[in-house]
Amino acid sequence: MNENKKSAPEKAPRAFERIQTEAVAKKPRTPRAQTGEKLGTRPSERASRPREYKRVKPIYGEKALRIIPLGGLGEIGKNLTMYESGEERILVDCGLAFPDDEMPGVDIVIPDFTYVVENAASIKALLVTHGHEDHIGGIPYLLKQADIPIFATKLTIGLIEAKLMEHSLPFKPRLNVISAGDTLDFGCFRVEAIRVNHSIPDAVAFAVRTPAGVIVQTGDFKVDYTPVFDETIDLTRFGQLGSEGVLALLSDSTNAEKPGSSLTESLVGDSLEKLFSRAEGKRLIIATFASNLQRIQQIIDIARRHKRKIALSGRSMENYTRIAGELGYLDIDDDMLVDVAQINRYKPSDLILITTGSQGEPLSALSRMAAGTHRQVSVGPGDLIIISATPIPGNEKMVTHVINGLLKRGSDVIYERMYETHVSGHANQDELMLMLQLVRPKFFIPVHGEYKHLVKHAKLAESLGVPSSHIIIPEIGEVIEFNERGFRKAGTVPSGRVFVDGLGVGDVGSVVLRDRKHLAQDGLMVVVCTVDPDSGEIISGPDVISRGFVYVKESEPLIDEAKSLTRIIIEEGLSNRGGFTKTDLRPRIREELQKLMDRRTKRSPMILPVIMEI
Amino acid sequence: MNENKKSAPEKAPRAFERIQTEAVAKKPRTPRAQTGEKLGTRPSERASRPREYKRVKPIYGEKALRIIPLGGLGEIGKNLTMYESGEERILVDCGLAFPDDEMPGVDIVIPDFTYVVENAASIKALLVTHGHEDHIGGIPYLLKQADIPIFATKLTIGLIEAKLMEHSLPFKPRLNVISAGDTLDFGCFRVEAIRVNHSIPDAVAFAVRTPAGVIVQTGDFKVDYTPVFDETIDLTRFGQLGSEGVLALLSDSTNAEKPGSSLTESLVGDSLEKLFSRAEGKRLIIATFASNLQRIQQIIDIARRHKRKIALSGRSMENYTRIAGELGYLDIDDDMLVDVAQINRYKPSDLILITTGSQGEPLSALSRMAAGTHRQVSVGPGDLIIISATPIPGNEKMVTHVINGLLKRGSDVIYERMYETHVSGHANQDELMLMLQLVRPKFFIPVHGEYKHLVKHAKLAESLGVPSSHIIIPEIGEVIEFNERGFRKAGTVPSGRVFVDGLGVGDVGSVVLRDRKHLAQDGLMVVVCTVDPDSGEIISGPDVISRGFVYVKESEPLIDEAKSLTRIIIEEGLSNRGGFTKTDLRPRIREELQKLMDRRTKRSPMILPVIMEI
Repeated sequence: MNENKKSAPEKAPRAFERIQTEAVAKKPRTPRAQTGEKLGTRPSERASRPREYKRVKPIYGEKALRIIPLGGLGEIGKNLTMYESGEERILVDCGLAFPDDEMPGVDIVIPDFTYVVENAASIKALLVTHGHEDHIGGIPYLLKQADIPIFATKLTIGLIEAKLMEHSLPFKPRLNVISAGDTLDFGCFRVEAIRVNHSIPDAVAFAVRTPAGVIVQTGDFKVDYTPVFDETIDLTRFGQLGSEGVLALLSDSTNAEKPGSSLTESLVGDSLEKLFSRAEGKRLIIATFASNLQRIQQIIDIARRHKRKIALSGRSMENYTRIAGELGYLDIDDDMLVDVAQINRYKPSDLILITTGSQGEPLSALSRMAAGTHRQVSVGPGDLIIISATPIPGNEKMVTHVINGLLKRGSDVIYERMYETHVSGHANQDELMLMLQLVRPKFFIPVHGEYKHLVKHAKLAESLGVPSSHIIIPEIGEVIEFNERGFRKAGTVPSGRVFVDGLGVGDVGSVVLRDRKHLAQDGLMVVVCTVDPDSGEIISGPDVISRGFVYVKESEPLIDEAKSLTRIIIEEGLSNRGGFTKTDLRPRIREELQKLMDRRTKRSPMILPVIMEI
Repeated sequence: MNENKKSAPEKAPRAFERIQTEAVAKKPRTPRAQTGEKLGTRPSERASRPREYKRVKPIYGEKALRIIPLGGLGEIGKNLTMYESGEERILVDCGLAFPDDEMPGVDIVIPDFTYVVENAASIKALLVTHGHEDHIGGIPYLLKQADIPIFATKLTIGLIEAKLMEHSLPFKPRLNVISAGDTLDFGCFRVEAIRVNHSIPDAVAFAVRTPAGVIVQTGDFKVDYTPVFDETIDLTRFGQLGSEGVLALLSDSTNAEKPGSSLTESLVGDSLEKLFSRAEGKRLIIATFASNLQRIQQIIDIARRHKRKIALSGRSMENYTRIAGELGYLDIDDDMLVDVAQINRYKPSDLILITTGSQGEPLSALSRMAAGTHRQVSVGPGDLIIISATPIPGNEKMVTHVINGLLKRGSDVIYERMYETHVSGHANQDELMLMLQLVRPKFFIPVHGEYKHLVKHAKLAESLGVPSSHIIIPEIGEVIEFNERGFRKAGTVPSGRVFVDGLGVGDVGSVVLRDRKHLAQDGLMVVVCTVDPDSGEIISGPDVISRGFVYVKESEPLIDEAKSLTRIIIEEGLSNRGGFTKTDLRPRIREELQKLMDRRTKRSPMILPVIMEI
């Protein structure tokens, strides 16, 4: 293996200074394991944790390497991978996932950290590929349980730092800035950061030299020959590693279904410039991802050329640009930036507004503009609005809702693919094949994607001659054990999803979600009755309260019927005439009311009988 | 106007007999208005009905025509249009829409029929363009309130009849079969049915001669020069009408965003045939829309060529094919059809299974196969599964979920666009422009689509020279009044969405939905207490029950805190020490508990205080 610590060619990036390597801890001190907070992770209510799992018994010997994906496989998001050799461990990435329709009320989803926390003392580093939420969003929750030192490039560390500020940690997190090209030793692991292209600057892949061989983990990547910041992905270094011999490649599968190559970010600048003619005399509003600083830089450049001011709308847009600006990742003249509260002092044709909400998020700035509820920005026929993003699967309807709203206000809206106002940050099939050909791994593990993406990526590798017996599609929690000769699946460790809802981490699980879904479908009916257990008499009630079930004012006969039925059951129960005792009362009321509601309405509200005793 | 009653060229369609015109009622008797059922439409809980609307006062005179869209504009689904002249009226289509995420628990959405029912006595006909749910699904609910005679082509009538059988009407519905080319008189309206192509056979457009001029309403259409059934859309007839002069065109906007022309249905047959080589030795499972009989016929033809048997899976697949078979719309040999319960008697390579579930619907046959819960069909590596459909916007994630499930079982799954196993049934931009050029209407009303589709369609018309002042994008409920010279917007009539949930029609409205969404987000907390109003003492409780809020077993301290707080408030209230009386108790408890829950959990469960008095 080439052990040059700075093998990557150095060239000054356009819009920010060369990042200096800071305090690289070669022998980090043993981390303290942090116990959970009051509303911390609760194993008993965990959503998808396997109840029984096989403990890992390393039989491949001390030289074996175990790769344990703890997130990001068979799903989009919450990427987390552990490397283990003997009792030495490192982690790569620690992201969050966003909840889907099956998780009502859940704010975010993080990986199950049980196995990480159990082994916290032996984890020497968390290495982070880039600053997107699906790679850094889990860090605050992990750090609350285990103080692990973090290593990432300057922008990524800046974003992690800002995120950690929102959570109050009982200690100062150990954040270390590295640069593409750096090589770091963590016990038996020697890790090299390799520059890649992605839709956020400063992204890297990692080559991990382990006792069993070299592992290359790409993180999210694409090949961009004309990127806006950075340089092109360090293809040479991937090729050199391939020549030296790579045991396994873990590669980004997000776009494995897409043929050809992804388009360059520079194309978006050209597209936006072309569309500028339609904005003559109009205010230009561009919605994009706040983390896509290359996109934002291109919009700034266009504003400069056309002598327009820039205003920013949306909390995350303000945060990302502030951090990027402070760290030198955005090239913007001080007098170009206008506070969004001041925009009415400028002619519409002198402004470009960059906003969040490109995914139609209901509370985002663009959604509020579409609904006419944005405090500072009122859109109308004087606006050209460009959605510089593609809907992430699942968001299509929300985006359409926003577009409809903007069009109804008379704005000109550009959102269709043909305008090429967005490109993906992930490699398409040709780029994935390029990566495979350069690295020429002995074993291949497609990562970052739903199952269909992993399968498609595996087929691509097969088509390049990787034998199918050398392709591994693990599930999260599965242990892949390597030595120089081969691999085997060596049991499983705890893994799964932990839901964050408000302040609660892990206290919403399958039971709570099942109840929420039930309540959403048909609402509920509460039946309350106070009884005197001694006399066997009803003292008060039964009363019936319903919510989300029927329009109460017009359902009085139904409610009265429910009351009568409940009264009969309770009276029978108390007098023991019906052959059942008081303890049967609640299930019996529930069952009979369910039958009644089904007959009358064909609905199944949740029925909550409450019997109070004096 | 050309008054030939059979102007369309006649040619025997391939797979079914020429349909005979049956009992065309020229002067339908005055319809009876039917009052709603027990849980019928309740205006007070209607979801989106404008509370105040301007009554229509016709000032354009007796010769004026009023077009009133009551559904299908600014939305996909529940198409319903009323034509009004003096006191004579006809309807075109009466569909349903499917609920979105904002309508939890709702089964289907139908138009608000208030205005139709108010005028039922003067409605001479409901004309139906084709048999899709978004054009016929509202009919049973309308007929329960107004016995209006229905006119449609043979297959459409067959499907309406089957649908009406599931609802018990207190009278025999008046169903009349017409054919493309037929002309029918309804008072001052003369209606001509014109053949179009669509993804269900036997679709027609209507040309309506009215006192103000000729209106052409396309229904859903595409131009298919090589359709599987039927002939090509009767372009000549549209051109003739254009030459004679058309006052207004109402045209399908569904695909107005898509450039070029839609692809022919025959292409799908070719694609499936090509994919057949991958199915060698395997069972072939094809998921498609049950109503796409052209698609199903092509699959049958392929099965015949390759000597495979056909099995059908899914209730709607069985229903559609049964009705189509009975009416002569499917050409299948009796010995080709195998009961799905018997498929294990055949070699996999001797079978093609046609199934529902192409949209990933959770309870569909394909979803059950993916989840391993289908009673008769167990899929695995021996299956080639083709999804012959594109996800309807909003269904992407469900479809992906099913694909992931099928892939995990080892099946080969073909679902990507590039395989061309699906074509749309709607006209793309070039076809829409062809329609506009043939009909050359004086006024243009884009219909069938969300607002963005209507705007795009309007722009297409403008690009062809229709002045923007002659293009009308109405909202549902708006009255467009025409005479020979022009149009004006003449007020509004009641319109909107009525939700069907179980047996209830209209009893779920905005309040119930708001509660359901609230319950889904954070669950609920019921606080119950029995008091003696005379002594001012608490007799029993307070008890706290929560569902969908927190994991109760591990939240005892929180629940205890809620109990104590409630006890304090009630005691204060009963003794009137706190300066408030018993009537303030419930809101006060709700408010204080909300604050407590927000502090402790940052969640907002629905809080239901119940105070029982003895």
